[in-house]
Amino acid sequence: MLHRSDDPWHVRQSRLDLHHPAAAASVLTLSNGYLGVRAVPERPGHGLGPGTLLATVYEEVPHTYAERAYAYPAVDEVLVPVVDAWALGWAVDGDPVDAPPADMPPAEEDGPRHDTPHDDRVLDLRRGVLDREQRWTAPSTGATVTLSSRRLVPLTRRGVVATRWRLRAEADVTLTARPVPGCGHADAGPAQEPGVRTLTCRHDPEGSAVHQRAERSGREVVVRTAHEVTAEDGVAATWSTDDPHGAVLTVDLRAGQSVEVVVLAAYAGGSDPEALHTQADAELRAARAAGWSGLRHEQETELAGVWARGDVLVAGDDELQQAARYALLQVVQASAQADGAGIRAKGLAGTGYHGHTFWDSECFVLPVLDHVLPRAAADHLRWRHATLPQARARAVELGLPGVTFPWRTISGRECSGYWPAGTAAFHVNAGIGMAAARHVAATGDEVFDRDVAVDLLVPTARLWAGRGHHTPDGFRIDGVTGPDEYTAVVDNNTYTNLVARENLRAAADACERHPQVAARLGVTATERAEWRRAADRMMVPHSAELGVTEQHEGFTRRAPWDFTAPENTRYPLQEHHPFVEIYRRQVTKQADLVLALHVAADDIPVEQKRRDFAYYEAITVRDSSLSAPAQAVVAAEVGHPDLAYAYARECALIDLSDLRASSAEGLHVAALAGAWTALVVGLGGLRQRGDAVHLTPRLPRRLTRIAFTVLQAGARVEVDVRQDVVAYRLLSGEEARLTHHGDPVHLTTAAPEQERPQPPAEHHPSPPQPPHRHPVFDET
Amino acid sequence: MLHRSDDPWHVRQSRLDLHHPAAAASVLTLSNGYLGVRAVPERPGHGLGPGTLLATVYEEVPHTYAERAYAYPAVDEVLVPVVDAWALGWAVDGDPVDAPPADMPPAEEDGPRHDTPHDDRVLDLRRGVLDREQRWTAPSTGATVTLSSRRLVPLTRRGVVATRWRLRAEADVTLTARPVPGCGHADAGPAQEPGVRTLTCRHDPEGSAVHQRAERSGREVVVRTAHEVTAEDGVAATWSTDDPHGAVLTVDLRAGQSVEVVVLAAYAGGSDPEALHTQADAELRAARAAGWSGLRHEQETELAGVWARGDVLVAGDDELQQAARYALLQVVQASAQADGAGIRAKGLAGTGYHGHTFWDSECFVLPVLDHVLPRAAADHLRWRHATLPQARARAVELGLPGVTFPWRTISGRECSGYWPAGTAAFHVNAGIGMAAARHVAATGDEVFDRDVAVDLLVPTARLWAGRGHHTPDGFRIDGVTGPDEYTAVVDNNTYTNLVARENLRAAADACERHPQVAARLGVTATERAEWRRAADRMMVPHSAELGVTEQHEGFTRRAPWDFTAPENTRYPLQEHHPFVEIYRRQVTKQADLVLALHVAADDIPVEQKRRDFAYYEAITVRDSSLSAPAQAVVAAEVGHPDLAYAYARECALIDLSDLRASSAEGLHVAALAGAWTALVVGLGGLRQRGDAVHLTPRLPRRLTRIAFTVLQAGARVEVDVRQDVVAYRLLSGEEARLTHHGDPVHLTTAAPEQERPQPPAEHHPSPPQPPHRHPVFDET
Repeated sequence: MLHRSDDPWHVRQSRLDLHHPAAAASVLTLSNGYLGVRAVPERPGHGLGPGTLLATVYEEVPHTYAERAYAYPAVDEVLVPVVDAWALGWAVDGDPVDAPPADMPPAEEDGPRHDTPHDDRVLDLRRGVLDREQRWTAPSTGATVTLSSRRLVPLTRRGVVATRWRLRAEADVTLTARPVPGCGHADAGPAQEPGVRTLTCRHDPEGSAVHQRAERSGREVVVRTAHEVTAEDGVAATWSTDDPHGAVLTVDLRAGQSVEVVVLAAYAGGSDPEALHTQADAELRAARAAGWSGLRHEQETELAGVWARGDVLVAGDDELQQAARYALLQVVQASAQADGAGIRAKGLAGTGYHGHTFWDSECFVLPVLDHVLPRAAADHLRWRHATLPQARARAVELGLPGVTFPWRTISGRECSGYWPAGTAAFHVNAGIGMAAARHVAATGDEVFDRDVAVDLLVPTARLWAGRGHHTPDGFRIDGVTGPDEYTAVVDNNTYTNLVARENLRAAADACERHPQVAARLGVTATERAEWRRAADRMMVPHSAELGVTEQHEGFTRRAPWDFTAPENTRYPLQEHHPFVEIYRRQVTKQADLVLALHVAADDIPVEQKRRDFAYYEAITVRDSSLSAPAQAVVAAEVGHPDLAYAYARECALIDLSDLRASSAEGLHVAALAGAWTALVVGLGGLRQRGDAVHLTPRLPRRLTRIAFTVLQAGARVEVDVRQDVVAYRLLSGEEARLTHHGDPVHLTTAAPEQERPQPPAEHHPSPPQPPHRHPVFDET
Repeated sequence: MLHRSDDPWHVRQSRLDLHHPAAAASVLTLSNGYLGVRAVPERPGHGLGPGTLLATVYEEVPHTYAERAYAYPAVDEVLVPVVDAWALGWAVDGDPVDAPPADMPPAEEDGPRHDTPHDDRVLDLRRGVLDREQRWTAPSTGATVTLSSRRLVPLTRRGVVATRWRLRAEADVTLTARPVPGCGHADAGPAQEPGVRTLTCRHDPEGSAVHQRAERSGREVVVRTAHEVTAEDGVAATWSTDDPHGAVLTVDLRAGQSVEVVVLAAYAGGSDPEALHTQADAELRAARAAGWSGLRHEQETELAGVWARGDVLVAGDDELQQAARYALLQVVQASAQADGAGIRAKGLAGTGYHGHTFWDSECFVLPVLDHVLPRAAADHLRWRHATLPQARARAVELGLPGVTFPWRTISGRECSGYWPAGTAAFHVNAGIGMAAARHVAATGDEVFDRDVAVDLLVPTARLWAGRGHHTPDGFRIDGVTGPDEYTAVVDNNTYTNLVARENLRAAADACERHPQVAARLGVTATERAEWRRAADRMMVPHSAELGVTEQHEGFTRRAPWDFTAPENTRYPLQEHHPFVEIYRRQVTKQADLVLALHVAADDIPVEQKRRDFAYYEAITVRDSSLSAPAQAVVAAEVGHPDLAYAYARECALIDLSDLRASSAEGLHVAALAGAWTALVVGLGGLRQRGDAVHLTPRLPRRLTRIAFTVLQAGARVEVDVRQDVVAYRLLSGEEARLTHHGDPVHLTTAAPEQERPQPPAEHHPSPPQPPHRHPVFDET
């Protein structure tokens, strides 16, 4: 096994340097993809809003358009916070515990750092718990109490959050605790603001019960809580019910005495209140049966598996090592229980982008989950599968065959209010199809292939066959928007065409693997042949003059973006320039052609890729966090491993350092997943194409070693890369066939480990980026 | 002089066959471009809304966007109806006169036709008055009264509407008249509905005074009215003031007696109430001084000039003859007093398109006004000139040099809420520049040239120089929307490129004519040379395979629109299909390439034009009324005079026959102007290029003769076309140099008339149109 240092395995709030007080609440989120708990204070009125998000609880808000047109989505869906039912409001000698520095960091950038030992929060990456320790002195009596809390949101359960409090008195004090002190503070404020309304909120000594509802959508949440109080001998802990709030716990401690309180909360969200009550009750019962230590153990065991499969060892950069682990934990937290709901772009760490699911999940997150938590990848695709009826209805509305999955959604319906960067981004469909095919290749899961993958691949292939058309020059796909949102509604976007080609071929392959499913779907040999013909004739625009692949047909004839004018380097460009100017120029928001080179361009020679990378690197302003992962992968492939390393750091640190000053609204889950991709696919050089797995590791100068595992057809292999040698080791499965820089490596249970010499890395001079848009951590 | 039959000079409501009760109110509108009075009933509560529109009175409404972006217009402007202060509510023996058939035709299509002689309205085209005669029997007493009214909105005055009532009794009756019976019924209803609020409404025997205000915009209207009552001897006509409404007129008539009441109303709209009161008072005083017969005479004299200059004699089709006159009258009514306000797309005949001005004015209306009412053309361009600061500010906001005039506006600011079909339609700027140059060529007005035209041409040329860029292949203008709204944000739209070329050259020419103005504007010889270089290198995309000019670069490689599928021929397509599908296909909403052939493609040979016309004719679904004029012109030029004739009829009859079922919201002023263009530029073959005027008349088989006049460098020439001969006659000016089918014709005061043989018209087979989209009146 890999040697793993016990550090850096902890993220300490006092070490974070964030732009916004709410950013820490996002960064320290505990979640499992169904339930998210932002690290907000337990008292209400802290200005950070309620901290609990439930994937299935959203409000519907009518879309308004200055000029409405046919098939514009009528309704938006907005994830809304629900009650912080896990909260316990403590008071010491009647004074509410309310210590601003940790609860609410000051907004001023030059304000005090919160590195005092009196109050800090620590996210334990290995164990998946958030610890807080706070020393607090009651203003009225001067009595000091140490409050320690440890919280976890089990990755193995659906809607549970568990908190263990330990309070130790340094003087004689009376403590009181109010359960759910902010009950109802999640209620929608002004009429316009979407939110939930509290229907009931009851507090008994046994626990609390809250029921809330989002009016227009009819989505409801039911929460049940339970408390367990453990006090030292001689300590009086009593529940009173004569408070108008409901039950209140009172504990009298002498100096040196302590009390422990465990709060278990079980959430259920959906549209059938009866079912929700049943579900919450059952969840709570099961959590109580497991108990605090059972839940803790479960969490640690689950994460041990995650780290065994997914940890990337990085030697030579402790900060990146910590950040890579943080990133993977948040990816897992965004995904583990997202079945039936879909993985969200911001995780459940904030309501940015209205809590929607985008193509981010399939294109950036699932390639990581396939290796680290394959079940969660399958669950997400099963959710897409469940939304096939909506995707079919949308295709019918648009006059298209097959399906069109939404650009952004919670329930499965299209919520995008700007079609040139929403509906026109048809590539999301190929992303879903390819993700299904990729999952099958990684896991070898034939049941998933038959029951899910074929159903996703066939209608998406039908979409492409109907959305494009043959001309003498080839098969064209016109009037679409690729990944780059600084061009829109273009012809023959290379990324779109290449992923459509993969989608068409994968669908034909899948139908040949599963003829009965194909027959049920009405796929004929003629249709399969049409898919293959469209794929074979797919146009890939190329500029002969410049010798580069075009982002879309005609892109390189467009006007340049004048980066020498100061007003043209105020980022993000879209906040300072109109789309009508941005679209017509050669300026790219995010990797588009470079993403195509990453995911679907094995037939393009590396020299061409290097020219392409240099061309687009100079015009990619990276106003989207979805850019760096592909840039890292392609930079590594074409001989810029140090640049790849810089992009990898940017992915891993995007939220820990709030690099986009937007972590307050939630985490950048795709970019966090991109950290793993940048390290494993970029520096590790992992390529999986159908049944074959290839590794072409290239270490940057700064690192001495990286190590990771990959899954191929159900077999797991450890890859341990040093500057001069690479070790391959079969961890599970009967055998694995790989290549190392093109040379075959065959691992079997009899001969599970092989070493190969690592050729010296190429270091081509890195191409320039736009002004102020080199990677934040670029040291090249 | 031309011989002109005295008929068809009248449009009779009872002969109209309209889709909607409100359409007649639009069709019979009286207007002068500042004030519009729709033919709504005089009683309130008729369901057609108030009928009075003032060009300068609009409300501001915040634009809402599902996804807002940089430089999206924040505010819309909405023309709002104001009080019908010209109205008089009659009652006979206490029964309000209220005869539904004429006032409000039934909505049912199979309902009774209103051809009873008891109530009809007649628009007198020659004299510009609307007559109504109504025989009405009071239900309570059975007494019958004939009510005759004649109304006019003087084309020579600003805000006046004059009505003369004549009432004759068949039995002894008591008549009462309430001035402005619906005062305040223009007030905005629900909070969302934009409208005016009545501040004061006072009725005295001398007349009424009303003051209204649109709250958010602060635009106000002040109206003053006066009455003159003339009764036969022995008839008592008295004003009482004890009615809560204010003054009420009571007249006792014996059988056979009659009374005459003249109502004069003067409107003033703007933002300074004090000035508005002064203006309305002065207007009213002046109108009273002129008196009813003076106003009548003024109107007839003004129109005599219009008809002398603008009437197109059409022999062989009485319906078209009437419709062409109707069309021209409405064009003149939309324009005569539009100075300071701009000519509106719907005239002042309705609030469709929010009462906005579009490119329609410069591209479709002004070419007609240049010959018929040149002063109004100049006034409109002076209004654009006055909005140069807003156009400059918008260009700065968009990061562009020069100016960008708005796609749609009332005040001069951009109001479009969908930028791909608004802001991106930069061609509006060339339309304005070209209109200025064309006006100078027609009138020879050097003062206008120096004071207005150069100021419009220079910043629009600067826009084009900065909005395009040079490549080895030529000068490109990318990411724009041409006239066709079924494609958007395309590269090298041929229409845009060709009109930009004209704009650039006209600006350079104008600067050379006026070096001092050019110097004031900072235009150097280098800049002029840049304009000419961009013009000379302007790209015109062409498909070598198909041998056709492309609507935009790559257009002919797009997918076809499948007209064989029934769901694909439900028009307008945009109400049944999404833009994302429409944009990518070869389907054209309105003449685009064909409009380019019409206005700016003299260097394209006629055979090429014929091929181009056939290609685009087959895919142009004409979901816009701006299509037929250009189709008529080009059809005539390339040898389809019968098809040109069919399109001419469609233009002329668009509102009289409510061809688009949208006349209820206002008139299609551009298409109405297009009737003149279709006849004179299409069948007459008029081309004016710089100093030269060319005529290539081609009569359709159905017509025996057309005759019209044209203005060139200040000289007016009559052109009288018969199947075998064309007569040219100098009507004013010292001389005129023309060509007839390419042969020079020189007219002088000494030899003012010449005849030329007319070669037999070519009749190439007409190309097909899309299903159900041949011209409505096509008989070919």
